[in-house]
Amino acid sequence: MVDETQQRIDEAFMQKAIFEAQKAAEAGEVPIGAVVVCRGKIISRAHNLTETLHDVTAHAEMQAITAAADSLGGKYLPDCTLYVTVEPCSMCAAALGWAQMGRIVYGTPDEKRGYRRYAPRVLHPKATVTQGVLAEECRQLMQQFFQQRR
Amino acid sequence: MVDETQQRIDEAFMQKAIFEAQKAAEAGEVPIGAVVVCRGKIISRAHNLTETLHDVTAHAEMQAITAAADSLGGKYLPDCTLYVTVEPCSMCAAALGWAQMGRIVYGTPDEKRGYRRYAPRVLHPKATVTQGVLAEECRQLMQQFFQQRR
Repeated sequence: MVDETQQRIDEAFMQKAIFEAQKAAEAGEVPIGAVVVCRGKIISRAHNLTETLHDVTAHAEMQAITAAADSLGGKYLPDCTLYVTVEPCSMCAAALGWAQMGRIVYGTPDEKRGYRRYAPRVLHPKATVTQGVLAEECRQLMQQFFQQRR
Repeated sequence: MVDETQQRIDEAFMQKAIFEAQKAAEAGEVPIGAVVVCRGKIISRAHNLTETLHDVTAHAEMQAITAAADSLGGKYLPDCTLYVTVEPCSMCAAALGWAQMGRIVYGTPDEKRGYRRYAPRVLHPKATVTQGVLAEECRQLMQQFFQQRR
């Protein structure tokens, strides 16, 4: 049974992550966006910046984790939820594990580079995962971006 | 058969990574250090800064990758070697994969958190790995640090 209230909350925050992803696309970056939410409030927002920074580690999730920890003044984020438009890669999932992120909500799966394929056990053991929130919008953003690039 | 010249070169660069690790220990950080070498020259040096920055992503390798890319002006590092005192974790190994790091040399294995346990296939497919270079020195640094903390 789906908790409709939680589902609406998740969609509202995913919409904010999608807004970040759109900003990435406008900047010529792979359109992936993320927000971190703690006790009902967004404490960090980020989008992919790998091209702008010439830095493969500048994924949306990595920046969102760093900014969230900075915002809370501590390294660990067990009471936080990360919303991200695309399934995290192994690097980001392992970073979420180190940060002890309590919950991860993602939009569209990434069958090729997603953490479930290469590193399925790197999240914190207590972390819960929800997938498929506004998945179609998240997927279309990625598809449009790569079609324009061809 | 071991190539003695390469072995000596590896030991010389690992010594530089150990020097970085010692700086980490002096700053109260888990003593892990790294250097990135390109065409025989060190192009970046880093040590763990997770405590200082309150940032779980501030591992030595992550910073060394970012600084090396900045130094070369490009995201990819296929002609580079990363020397790091301890086996990289899954996050760092996946970052090394994204960066297409050509060669990884590490000192002591990390049976608990090392990438080989949780994410053995995240390095770039063409990457080569050498382990055990000055392993005992690297291991002792870690052991001493954690003994003092108990």
